[in-house]
Amino acid sequence: MKRENISISVIRRLPRYYRFLQEMLGKGIERTSSKELSERMGLTASQIRQDLNCFGGFGQQGYGYNINMLYHEIGHIIGTDNPQNIVLIGAGHLGSAIATHMDFASHGFCLVGIFDSDKRNTGTMVAGVPVMHSSELPAFCQKKHPSAAILCIPKSGAQEMADQLIELSIHAFWNFSHYDLRTKHENIVVENVHLGDSLLTLRYQNNHMECESNE
Amino acid sequence: MKRENISISVIRRLPRYYRFLQEMLGKGIERTSSKELSERMGLTASQIRQDLNCFGGFGQQGYGYNINMLYHEIGHIIGTDNPQNIVLIGAGHLGSAIATHMDFASHGFCLVGIFDSDKRNTGTMVAGVPVMHSSELPAFCQKKHPSAAILCIPKSGAQEMADQLIELSIHAFWNFSHYDLRTKHENIVVENVHLGDSLLTLRYQNNHMECESNE
Repeated sequence: MKRENISISVIRRLPRYYRFLQEMLGKGIERTSSKELSERMGLTASQIRQDLNCFGGFGQQGYGYNINMLYHEIGHIIGTDNPQNIVLIGAGHLGSAIATHMDFASHGFCLVGIFDSDKRNTGTMVAGVPVMHSSELPAFCQKKHPSAAILCIPKSGAQEMADQLIELSIHAFWNFSHYDLRTKHENIVVENVHLGDSLLTLRYQNNHMECESNE
Repeated sequence: MKRENISISVIRRLPRYYRFLQEMLGKGIERTSSKELSERMGLTASQIRQDLNCFGGFGQQGYGYNINMLYHEIGHIIGTDNPQNIVLIGAGHLGSAIATHMDFASHGFCLVGIFDSDKRNTGTMVAGVPVMHSSELPAFCQKKHPSAAILCIPKSGAQEMADQLIELSIHAFWNFSHYDLRTKHENIVVENVHLGDSLLTLRYQNNHMECESNE
């Protein structure tokens, strides 16, 4: 195991390897080669060999990779075998869809509570998880110790909420709010999801392609 | 205007510039400097000067950038001033949330129709847009000529649907389905949103931070 040496660029590719390996496992495939993976993933075979070498010992010349072992080792590195409690802040359209749509267990998290500042949204269940009023957050965190939060609230309320959550020992944020959490806080991890940026990129590419459609 | 020379790495930063400039405009700020932008955006001032020079003529020494002009020029490059018709495929939790949550008009698109293969979901309105049965797609596309589609359907049905949409002259995809559209089709533009990869990255970072929390 050479885990200490894994570079940030390899780390960024881990979820993708994990996803492709899971898919192959689901199809009952037991072994794969860097060549086959490269065709599926659109990376070069040499890139894949280099990346997977970081996890050590799974590739054998003439045999390829044992998909099951590689999948579980990558899962272990990511932490999917050790789920952590996460709370969702904001039970609006997007928050409710995230709660319902995502399979948290297979992504290393356990969604334990949903919170909303609007009492009309509380007292119900979404995806089997209770929706509570934001005022219940402190007591809940003392009991369940979530280490992560999903922010599905408007940007205007995000700073105050983030301050409170960090106070309650939450230090990892899946951030849909467009508020830049790092401007005020250090020692937190943030994964921003900017759906708007993604849609604008599509719009640009759509233009660009039309310009070049005859090339 | 030196648009021809804009590199792909600058293109990828365009939505972010656009978002920050929009925010500053909303606050009534008229001018900014590369230094101020760099503090807001977490890029270096020199990087920002280089990027914005690609659009030509907006920076003046000792004056800074005219935010309104820069914002509209970037919007024009992206195409936000020329909205294109887009359809949403899949009116489940995620699809409905995307339809309700996103401001399409300010991202260069006009959401003209929502389609679902389940008749129980059709005949209603979501975000003011009619939900129709998938069988109505061909007639609808002949009439409204959407150039783009949002795929909020499970991976299992994505290939067949993508084949049909491409047949109907749709060539840009905002893809939430985890199906890799490019394996079968060329000459299309695809913006993949892998929410699962993002959540796994957060889980890894959460682990990693805990290991290094005393550093």
